[in-house]
Amino acid sequence: MPHIDIPPGLPGIRGPLSLRPDVAKPLSGLMEVLMRDENALSRGERELIAGYVSYLNNCLFCELAHGAVAQHYLQCDLDFINKVKANFTTADLSDKLKALLAVAASVQKGGAHVTAEQVGMARQAGATDVEIHDTVLISAAFCMFNRYTDGLDTWTPTDINFYLGRAPDVARKGYTIV
Amino acid sequence: MPHIDIPPGLPGIRGPLSLRPDVAKPLSGLMEVLMRDENALSRGERELIAGYVSYLNNCLFCELAHGAVAQHYLQCDLDFINKVKANFTTADLSDKLKALLAVAASVQKGGAHVTAEQVGMARQAGATDVEIHDTVLISAAFCMFNRYTDGLDTWTPTDINFYLGRAPDVARKGYTIV
Repeated sequence: MPHIDIPPGLPGIRGPLSLRPDVAKPLSGLMEVLMRDENALSRGERELIAGYVSYLNNCLFCELAHGAVAQHYLQCDLDFINKVKANFTTADLSDKLKALLAVAASVQKGGAHVTAEQVGMARQAGATDVEIHDTVLISAAFCMFNRYTDGLDTWTPTDINFYLGRAPDVARKGYTIV
Repeated sequence: MPHIDIPPGLPGIRGPLSLRPDVAKPLSGLMEVLMRDENALSRGERELIAGYVSYLNNCLFCELAHGAVAQHYLQCDLDFINKVKANFTTADLSDKLKALLAVAASVQKGGAHVTAEQVGMARQAGATDVEIHDTVLISAAFCMFNRYTDGLDTWTPTDINFYLGRAPDVARKGYTIV
């Protein structure tokens, strides 16, 4: 049961956001610009980073939700998403995305864990400053969203089909809920 | 030296935000609504939570910046801010704020660390659902801002007087930089 009085039937972050439309607006705005706007990183790549960071933070709602949206955009199967989470270094990903996932994993531990070597590897694999910036901010933002979702003990459906079923809708409508 | 090419002379988060005005807008908007808008928690209390979480995340820029703004609002001295960071349970704070700081500290570790007992203690001390919600989100948001600031290795002035000197200006102008 959620720690605070949240309207029933709203999964994950949607519950607390419904209580505070004033904060929902900038949070939705951040998601739109960071995860959906025109970017050198594809929407699928960004959702994969988000799902991976959420997995590292043990936030099941965000892990499954963004993993499912990544799967939708990348047109891959669930095995691929699970392989990335288990060990992205051996998954069928570009060297650039692997290097950015390593940066994202360090950000998840704490900002100071990001090393010049990691950033250098990302740059060597073709990542631009904006891509490095956005990877750091996506990982940091999910360290927020994950804690917001779990810190209030929101409703987390456990059936993967719930997330797979709504992914096309999320992809079509986006994150603006206000 | 920052991990990416950031204009010199911009401290902490201001550097990367200058590169990406599109993301600066919702992030500034979040700060305004969460830290400055009308709220049952005073601006000083909210800044104290933000500074404390930043201290737990070892983000010196945010720790000193928000500690200084808290000091400005609460009209206290630096010793008081340092005492809260060292052990808020023995500081001269209301039971409600102590209970909310305990919730914030759990959120910093990870959302699932927040217990029903902690939330119960906050409620018993008079905290409302919105105050509990906002405390969780402030802590979660600074887990993002801290990682964003340090993950790009931004410029962090180490002289406390830098932060104390700009606190009145931050209090007057707010966080809208776009």
